[in-house]
Amino acid sequence: MTTSDSPLPSWRAGTTREAVVAFLKSAEDLPPRERVACFDNDGTLWVERPNYVQLDFFLDALRRRVGTEPDLGSRPEYAALLSGDTAALGELGLPRIALALTELFEGVHPDVFTGHVRDFMATATHAALDRPLRTLIYAPMLELIEELRSRDFSVTIVTGGGTEFVRAISDELYGVPPEAVVGTLIEYDFHAGEDGPHLSRSKRLLGQANEGASKVVNIQTQLGRRPILAAGNSDGDSEMLEWAGNGAGPSLSLLVDHDDGDREFSYSGHSVTLTDTEPILTTAGRLGWTVVSMARDWARVFPDVQN
Amino acid sequence: MTTSDSPLPSWRAGTTREAVVAFLKSAEDLPPRERVACFDNDGTLWVERPNYVQLDFFLDALRRRVGTEPDLGSRPEYAALLSGDTAALGELGLPRIALALTELFEGVHPDVFTGHVRDFMATATHAALDRPLRTLIYAPMLELIEELRSRDFSVTIVTGGGTEFVRAISDELYGVPPEAVVGTLIEYDFHAGEDGPHLSRSKRLLGQANEGASKVVNIQTQLGRRPILAAGNSDGDSEMLEWAGNGAGPSLSLLVDHDDGDREFSYSGHSVTLTDTEPILTTAGRLGWTVVSMARDWARVFPDVQN
Repeated sequence: MTTSDSPLPSWRAGTTREAVVAFLKSAEDLPPRERVACFDNDGTLWVERPNYVQLDFFLDALRRRVGTEPDLGSRPEYAALLSGDTAALGELGLPRIALALTELFEGVHPDVFTGHVRDFMATATHAALDRPLRTLIYAPMLELIEELRSRDFSVTIVTGGGTEFVRAISDELYGVPPEAVVGTLIEYDFHAGEDGPHLSRSKRLLGQANEGASKVVNIQTQLGRRPILAAGNSDGDSEMLEWAGNGAGPSLSLLVDHDDGDREFSYSGHSVTLTDTEPILTTAGRLGWTVVSMARDWARVFPDVQN
Repeated sequence: MTTSDSPLPSWRAGTTREAVVAFLKSAEDLPPRERVACFDNDGTLWVERPNYVQLDFFLDALRRRVGTEPDLGSRPEYAALLSGDTAALGELGLPRIALALTELFEGVHPDVFTGHVRDFMATATHAALDRPLRTLIYAPMLELIEELRSRDFSVTIVTGGGTEFVRAISDELYGVPPEAVVGTLIEYDFHAGEDGPHLSRSKRLLGQANEGASKVVNIQTQLGRRPILAAGNSDGDSEMLEWAGNGAGPSLSLLVDHDDGDREFSYSGHSVTLTDTEPILTTAGRLGWTVVSMARDWARVFPDVQN
């Protein structure tokens, strides 16, 4: 078998790759409707350090806005963000910061928001890695997605990030359609105008942030199917990985361990919002999940950059 | 061209069929991601008279429950339902009745609920039409769904009915997967048990009933795409049909008019929950929607029954 015929060429031979291949084989006997895979996005499909890509997008939008409305820059949340004052950011807290950023797009039509995200992603670069942000997706995970899709899996993204932010790029980057993206939602306002109905973004969160137990609940309410493969990298993915691994049939709970400071970043999977929980590597050991060591298991991290 | 080669064989020749065929043709130039169709379910894809199928399901569940727990039968909502006391039902109001029925499945795992729905649908019959309930789907709409799917449309169901109720049968009846069903949701409770996480149905509605403006909002939040075809039959579909018809490109807003008392039921499309709005046939005329006369436009109403 040549390399190009072999599935998962960016995965090095070893127990991790063997576990993935064994799962793919075992799923062949299942009816297609049971073949559901849920992937976390930040840190699982693409880079999340030093900033979440979505935060970079919002920071860019904030700088543009403050350029035309300088008074906005004195608002405490925005001032802390613009100066990178981590002490002030910590004191204000992530929920308040996130809501302040959400307000930047209050009143905006969903298609216009999508356009802003795509414009940003078309040109933004990652300073430390010196690559376009849109290329900072993990080649081994793309191969796994392709392999799953060729085996009639429904491939979905279940992210703590904004649903509409991820939808704006999920089709182009991962081939995942908008309805297969489950994330954190903001509410829309409905307007019955003279020229027909239209929608605008509010500054209100719809339900809770899509982390932890909410990922399991939202998979059920929005997708209506239980995954048999779940992949994540942080505490906020723990319940989803356990949910996927807890069915009667074959399953795969994949935990990406960021242990490759040379090619990417080296850090543990503690999410910023859930700090009281068991470290997820401990959970992985206890429940027998498959841990993906980026340093050991991935022959390459990023796809070739074509520009 | 023979009948079997012709698309939409159950649609009689005429302006309605011509409008549908012209729309299909005009959509061929669109990128597949823009080919999204949203169908209402009750009264648009299957029979809703004299009762919503979902109400028949809940009534059946209520009778079984009262058989083993007779005291339940004295609860006002249940007593009115069991005796068919329309005055009492009207006084109690639909929201209170619906919530009382939702309580019948409080604490139940989603897969168990799905099993109950499928068991019911496997054997239940429609007394007036003397057919199994599962065969009371409209053959012309099934043909339209097939035709859309063959043209790379994403075919979705946007229903005022319970999301999980419709999901239980949407794949078998319409080939629509669970994630493509947008309906009225109940909240789930998440439990972190010794044996891993599990979910149970609560008795709380998640957001509002999926009718009227909520259909437009929920299409955006759950599907993330705007339909270019919407089909409905009642006031609760009005905003969705206007939304679909309001884009820049080709679109089709289809309104099913139940004017065929011989083969089905003859009634106007006033929903029970929205009575203050313009009659939907008036809206259809004002906005140039395509009205489907069941009596005139459909050569047959139901598919052949095979049992």
